[in-house]
Amino acid sequence: MTSFEVKAIGRVESPLTELESAPRQADDGAAEAWMVFEPEMLEGLLSLRPGDEVIVITWLDRARRDVLSVHPRGDRSRAQEGVFSTRSPHRPNPIGLHRVEITAIDGRRVRVRNLEVLDGTPIIDVKPILSGDISQR
Amino acid sequence: MTSFEVKAIGRVESPLTELESAPRQADDGAAEAWMVFEPEMLEGLLSLRPGDEVIVITWLDRARRDVLSVHPRGDRSRAQEGVFSTRSPHRPNPIGLHRVEITAIDGRRVRVRNLEVLDGTPIIDVKPILSGDISQR
Repeated sequence: MTSFEVKAIGRVESPLTELESAPRQADDGAAEAWMVFEPEMLEGLLSLRPGDEVIVITWLDRARRDVLSVHPRGDRSRAQEGVFSTRSPHRPNPIGLHRVEITAIDGRRVRVRNLEVLDGTPIIDVKPILSGDISQR
Repeated sequence: MTSFEVKAIGRVESPLTELESAPRQADDGAAEAWMVFEPEMLEGLLSLRPGDEVIVITWLDRARRDVLSVHPRGDRSRAQEGVFSTRSPHRPNPIGLHRVEITAIDGRRVRVRNLEVLDGTPIIDVKPILSGDISQR
């Protein structure tokens, strides 16, 4: 398979430090976290404002990449599903998709609500939410 | 910056073959396209069904990666914005996010509506839409 190089443009600073304490879905908790961007990314951040809702794309670097089917939410009483029908972090490219609200900005540090990932998780992109949510229609 | 290897799990077959003909936003058109997955990804696709709305994540391999601010929608009469406040394909990691509807499935070929990317664009992930759209709340 062809591959590409994806760069960590920043990292998440989060109170979540163990896989076991990470909620499977963010409705299980709503901790705040900081996104700390690399200095050379500053220009790309300049139009973000507190109050903005954005989509954060992360690289879930502690996930497994050799998994193609899972029990939904890790519940073994449920039938296995193909990973592309689930939000499992374990998948060929361990990409996380998170809708968050920006609560503060301090230079290249951006504080957000509802980013439930482990401390140190790499950030690979940030995008605005369009009308129709992530739809581009 | 740390980097990771992202794999093309498939490719888009699309009638769009030139950058100039690609609509900037999908409300400018609604062509159907095929997602053609690598044979080893088949197990991950098995729970997808026609009628499902899913999020497709692509690697926009013809975009520029050295761009940090752009004129929104390429309109030079509008002030430049940081790329992380825009959906420009030109950004440090050229990741595309698309909300599409599955209209047919034939093995590892999946037909979708509203996937407006150039023919040959690599696919790197597919995720279900959760309640609250892409929110994980």
